[in-house]
Amino acid sequence: MDILDALRSITGPDHVLTGPDMAGFATDWVGKYQNTPLAAVRPGSVEDVSQIMKLANDTQTPVVPVSGHTGLAGGAHAPEGSLMLSLSRLNTIREIKPDARLAIVDGGVVLEALHNAVAEHGLRFPMTFGAQGSCQIAGMLATNAGGSNVLKFGNTRALCIGIEAVLPDGRVLDLMSQLHKDNSGYDLRDLLIGSEGTLGVITGAVLKLVPAPAARATAMLALDNLTDALSVLNRLQEATGGTVEAFEYMPARYLTAVHTHFPDLKPVFDADHPVTVLAEIASTAPTDAQPDPDGSLPLVSTFEALLADAIEAGQIQDAIIAQNDTQRSQIWARREAAAEVCLARSPLVNNDIALPLDQVDPFLTRMTDELAALDPKADVLEVAHLGDGNIHYTVFPSDPALCDPIMERVEDVVREMGGSFSAEHGIGLTKLPSMQRRKDPVALEVMGQIKNALDPKGIMNPGKVLPT
Amino acid sequence: MDILDALRSITGPDHVLTGPDMAGFATDWVGKYQNTPLAAVRPGSVEDVSQIMKLANDTQTPVVPVSGHTGLAGGAHAPEGSLMLSLSRLNTIREIKPDARLAIVDGGVVLEALHNAVAEHGLRFPMTFGAQGSCQIAGMLATNAGGSNVLKFGNTRALCIGIEAVLPDGRVLDLMSQLHKDNSGYDLRDLLIGSEGTLGVITGAVLKLVPAPAARATAMLALDNLTDALSVLNRLQEATGGTVEAFEYMPARYLTAVHTHFPDLKPVFDADHPVTVLAEIASTAPTDAQPDPDGSLPLVSTFEALLADAIEAGQIQDAIIAQNDTQRSQIWARREAAAEVCLARSPLVNNDIALPLDQVDPFLTRMTDELAALDPKADVLEVAHLGDGNIHYTVFPSDPALCDPIMERVEDVVREMGGSFSAEHGIGLTKLPSMQRRKDPVALEVMGQIKNALDPKGIMNPGKVLPT
Repeated sequence: MDILDALRSITGPDHVLTGPDMAGFATDWVGKYQNTPLAAVRPGSVEDVSQIMKLANDTQTPVVPVSGHTGLAGGAHAPEGSLMLSLSRLNTIREIKPDARLAIVDGGVVLEALHNAVAEHGLRFPMTFGAQGSCQIAGMLATNAGGSNVLKFGNTRALCIGIEAVLPDGRVLDLMSQLHKDNSGYDLRDLLIGSEGTLGVITGAVLKLVPAPAARATAMLALDNLTDALSVLNRLQEATGGTVEAFEYMPARYLTAVHTHFPDLKPVFDADHPVTVLAEIASTAPTDAQPDPDGSLPLVSTFEALLADAIEAGQIQDAIIAQNDTQRSQIWARREAAAEVCLARSPLVNNDIALPLDQVDPFLTRMTDELAALDPKADVLEVAHLGDGNIHYTVFPSDPALCDPIMERVEDVVREMGGSFSAEHGIGLTKLPSMQRRKDPVALEVMGQIKNALDPKGIMNPGKVLPT
Repeated sequence: MDILDALRSITGPDHVLTGPDMAGFATDWVGKYQNTPLAAVRPGSVEDVSQIMKLANDTQTPVVPVSGHTGLAGGAHAPEGSLMLSLSRLNTIREIKPDARLAIVDGGVVLEALHNAVAEHGLRFPMTFGAQGSCQIAGMLATNAGGSNVLKFGNTRALCIGIEAVLPDGRVLDLMSQLHKDNSGYDLRDLLIGSEGTLGVITGAVLKLVPAPAARATAMLALDNLTDALSVLNRLQEATGGTVEAFEYMPARYLTAVHTHFPDLKPVFDADHPVTVLAEIASTAPTDAQPDPDGSLPLVSTFEALLADAIEAGQIQDAIIAQNDTQRSQIWARREAAAEVCLARSPLVNNDIALPLDQVDPFLTRMTDELAALDPKADVLEVAHLGDGNIHYTVFPSDPALCDPIMERVEDVVREMGGSFSAEHGIGLTKLPSMQRRKDPVALEVMGQIKNALDPKGIMNPGKVLPT
């Protein structure tokens, strides 16, 4: 039997798309890579996925799992002759357990659909990022996505306690534990999380939920330097018991670019400051959300007092606190403009790097010198999840030929400072050269040994993550 | 060259112990298994460990890594002809980074030594359990140990962001990341954590620190049932922003046994209550630790108010709050008596199980019926980290021949309820039969494939974790 007929007999003919019918699968959100698969197949059950993988394994057909197409590193690129395996029909929220604070979901559930479903129970799945309206849980897990609230809640890995996956030969791995403690053998869950579809297809997950916040307080802080910013972060964490949810660094040049790009967004402070930080704390305590007689929220008053102390200590130069949701949105708009502002010019070298928190400042200083030597005319725009040490460090070289040397130099400096060349977007295709150059060579060997053990025929999202 | 001579040339002759010199390695803390190794070797550096593993791999000599000898599942049992590889000389705290809230340590550092060292910086490594005075970091990581504060801070895995390990063939895997975000390939760190020495020897780690608490509030609560207890836990978590550090369940029969065993510990409440809970919250906020004019701590007053609300709502029947450290210690003494009280009789079936939080109560009810059918004369003592769903469920059968049937029945019920037969002590040797019976068979196969890929000669702590 022809492989397409075999697929049709598994999923029904409507769910094996070829030719013009699979136009929606032609490229991902970034649009950098053109997909040329044999077909796109939409299984309707875990059993379908298992049968498809068995068929693919028997016929040595490469399979590229795809969920929301929103990855930034080409992890779902489908080469000639491959099958794209879409999770979009596996989109059932199997169960929400409010008392246990868990959601049990199919891999193809859209992140925002989960947000909305748990909100009805006064709960929150604390993972938010730009693509949430279309990205799916399985892709989020496969890339171990980050987002805006990693500082408080961790990355995707930290929010997942159970997983279900179909292995390259069709076996179904059932690790759908609902347990906070489960010490029974190797941690295969975390091996699959972040493996970017190269070890299996994630079909289900058990996710942690947290109470929805009762109150939030959001501020823009003006500071002299990043050392003070780190001290302020620690001060806020201690004083509030670790309730800082976002701590986002925007340097003066970034804000200037934002205000140029979006003239409606006026400067927040009268003067320019070397360092601006968006800080947000949140509380689930009803007492923090009960307005005082003067109408102010206790959480906001607490935040004001803490910031006043830091101003008195000379660590903060100026601060503005949002008094309502509209003001909060306006503050966030400056941070959320990052992609549009930073990707508006070409050529560019776009780095998604992570550093130890105390190395962010030395890195930026060092890179200023390095760039002065490599390309004195280069421009830089950076914006950072400072609380995570994660910098989106974009360089605009004066000459496209300088892109690679600059990228390598950034990697050099990051490595010397104990950082990572890849913080939250994954490796996919685009970071393979960096992976080859920068990853611990023994780790690369071990990854290869594991890949080979679990996918001896090499059919599972081939060519991604592991340099060859 | 003789293997012992080869070892001596690596570590120096003083650190290859044989015969009476290795008496200290004869057994572990539990004393269940007698070790009969060829020698105990004490490497003084990571390079020593690497050379020892190369030698062992070349000569196909089994190696059993051992740190504090405090494991409860026989994971460090050394069979005839094996080498015990002690980490005790790798006991340097390499660096404490107060601003970044990290400790970088050798694998052989004793947990309590780390506690003391970070306390000097006003910081805390939030992992505490009975063996902390002698257990070492590497063993804690290898078993993914739990402890008293998992509810708030997670298990060992959640506290480790970087790892260094020597693989079975002597290669050194350097994943000593100091990063909170690092998405660069498979999660080999978490694969090694919890692998109980079967995939490599953990020689170093980067551990997360948190601020030391400024204030604590500790209470004993009397409740009618576990459903109310879970509601109270959620109520406390919401109202305090998730600061509950311990939520320990003690049923009436457990407290009766404690009071019989330790006559100095008087009953806390005038009447018996079906459910007693030790609840502790802590805060790093200085405002919570500044005594009010009447001398009471604000955190304690907050706790009192919350408990009063729950009493009014009918969820708590009675409550006593510790007013000072002495009272706190007396409350904790009832919980810490568990090992002595529960292991005082024989025969016994000792279970370290985990359940979804909302299944703890149904499990206990169900087991009452099951035991009535299996062994009507059996006694039960249970005590639980209720906030983690982790129950130490001990059964004293009327006949030793009933131990195995009861163990299997507990496993049956745990499995049906989505629980795990192994929560925090690891598999080692003692849980191998349960592992064979209860672990997802595909997971067992995948574990075997990974073990075989990384340790093809099977020299790394053979016979543990993976049933054969």
